[in-house]
Amino acid sequence: MILDEIAESVQKYFRTPIYRRMIEDILAACELTNDFWMLIRYSHQPTLIVSKTLEEFSKRGIISVKNGCVHLTERGRELLKKLGIGMRIYTCKNCEGRGIDEKLLEIVPEFVKIAKERPVPIQEYDQGYITVRCTLARVALMDQFNDLRGREIIVLGDDDLVSIAAALTGWPKRVVMVDIDERLISFANKIADEYGLKLDAITLDLRKPLPDNYARKFDTFVTDPPETVAGMRAFIGRGLSALKGVGCAGYFGLTTSDSSRWKWAQIQRVLLNEFGVVICAIIPDFNLYENWPYMEEIRGYKEAFVKTLPRDIWFTSAWIRIETLPGYKAFTEEIEGDIYFDEENAST
Amino acid sequence: MILDEIAESVQKYFRTPIYRRMIEDILAACELTNDFWMLIRYSHQPTLIVSKTLEEFSKRGIISVKNGCVHLTERGRELLKKLGIGMRIYTCKNCEGRGIDEKLLEIVPEFVKIAKERPVPIQEYDQGYITVRCTLARVALMDQFNDLRGREIIVLGDDDLVSIAAALTGWPKRVVMVDIDERLISFANKIADEYGLKLDAITLDLRKPLPDNYARKFDTFVTDPPETVAGMRAFIGRGLSALKGVGCAGYFGLTTSDSSRWKWAQIQRVLLNEFGVVICAIIPDFNLYENWPYMEEIRGYKEAFVKTLPRDIWFTSAWIRIETLPGYKAFTEEIEGDIYFDEENAST
Repeated sequence: MILDEIAESVQKYFRTPIYRRMIEDILAACELTNDFWMLIRYSHQPTLIVSKTLEEFSKRGIISVKNGCVHLTERGRELLKKLGIGMRIYTCKNCEGRGIDEKLLEIVPEFVKIAKERPVPIQEYDQGYITVRCTLARVALMDQFNDLRGREIIVLGDDDLVSIAAALTGWPKRVVMVDIDERLISFANKIADEYGLKLDAITLDLRKPLPDNYARKFDTFVTDPPETVAGMRAFIGRGLSALKGVGCAGYFGLTTSDSSRWKWAQIQRVLLNEFGVVICAIIPDFNLYENWPYMEEIRGYKEAFVKTLPRDIWFTSAWIRIETLPGYKAFTEEIEGDIYFDEENAST
Repeated sequence: MILDEIAESVQKYFRTPIYRRMIEDILAACELTNDFWMLIRYSHQPTLIVSKTLEEFSKRGIISVKNGCVHLTERGRELLKKLGIGMRIYTCKNCEGRGIDEKLLEIVPEFVKIAKERPVPIQEYDQGYITVRCTLARVALMDQFNDLRGREIIVLGDDDLVSIAAALTGWPKRVVMVDIDERLISFANKIADEYGLKLDAITLDLRKPLPDNYARKFDTFVTDPPETVAGMRAFIGRGLSALKGVGCAGYFGLTTSDSSRWKWAQIQRVLLNEFGVVICAIIPDFNLYENWPYMEEIRGYKEAFVKTLPRDIWFTSAWIRIETLPGYKAFTEEIEGDIYFDEENAST
């Protein structure tokens, strides 16, 4: 079958297993959009794998590209029809699929105002932030899971400004933002001063174990790790080392555009087998990322099959909640080597 | 601290670890509702553990019970205030928190009509069905993940009528409903005849390996296992044995009312380590269960700290999507012994 052949051809470029289902999802997404970036979003397949697959589709006359748009050819349409596969989008318009109505938070207008003055994302720090609605929804979700009120919260890497939104509610006991970007740190501390928030923004080198005054001091951590197994282990492990003990919670994002399901499983095994935590929620496409200014510099763009800039929000991530269980283990070692690169991560 | 003491007291009744966070979640839920059953829903803690915890709360003057309603006492309120913890509900009103707008399906009115004639749930088969909206949302979610159109779908145990809704769309290649309840089988086959659906309803003993004509023949399975580790292994394992191979999908429910987070982690380790699948989504409270007629017969009611009947929907489950990966393993052995009983499952 042609899709198996395509999977075999694409496999030559990756060590990650490539199988027919991945190709099917990309083909089915071609029916939903002509936009290369939205294809990645809807197929839930890694950017670099989508690129190579589209190349194979094109070679075999399944798609054609005109004016930066991907079109199914007559042949492509027939193939899809013969297979009978396909997908449709049913995302709730009210909550954008998150299931959470962040508009119930009273801080919405205040936070919207604050976020307007945030620093611009820069590639040096792997930045790129989610929409204001998503940041607020993260805070609402924490509140729904008893992870916000009266809690000590640490956010490891926070261009999303979750720490500011959390502190703005006035409900946490204390919020700490850790980042390497001095612009963010001074922005957060300025806002904290201005609004009288229980928020400290500090710079820490997360490659090193947490200093004593941050280790085992928090109830909840939030982070957005680099999308490699090593990056997940490092950031989530550091988050865990910040927690007080059993029954604390952590939140982090995981994409399908930078991580195959194969990588997802490896990460999940780290969570369950190495860290001994439980996964309480994996909400697909919870986080919607605003397009960032250095798009042309990322690997996903450089190796894109269609070199257009995205017009809509295409980069999303699942939002994952974990909880520490008796016997859990944090990651307290020093992190060495590159935790940003693997063959799937297209955001580097 | 009093909450640690309570955890210790409750621990005497369970082998499952009981820790302070669980008690905190139950206490925080007391602020949201006076209804015993809604307390279970909001705290996301197991029914039997909630009952024992409320007993301890009551002994210590943290709550009082009047006319079947649970009230925080002055002391309870002060304790909560001192701790500062709490939760609020932000569930999206439009999609009921599922993130999926099932109203986009054209089959809604037809399915609503069909569901009106469904058989009444009976305890003998551990039945109890989700709302019509939830069944439709399951179908919509499958369609969004490319698991519905052109697919061969098997539903193992289906008083929720997912197989009927899926077949009614006309998109799957074939749908098979497997159940032990002859009433459901004949209902489904009657509907299939009436509407000309590609739906077969059959009786199979799921304790035995799937017969050759059902093993390795499907793209997608759906099931709602008994809430024990053995039950999950058996039903999900059987579902996996029905799948054609790599890149197929499975869906199943998991509650917090019958399963502690500790049990969740055990089940997740079965998925990742024994079966070698990946968890793609865990959507909290996706499934809302209609109250069932034999409520007074379940263990959760018999051991309930407050013996009132539920007035609203209280029993929910997370909806989980898994996908098979290269090297995955199904469960093909015969199932022996009780897969329904463990110390947490209150639905038996």
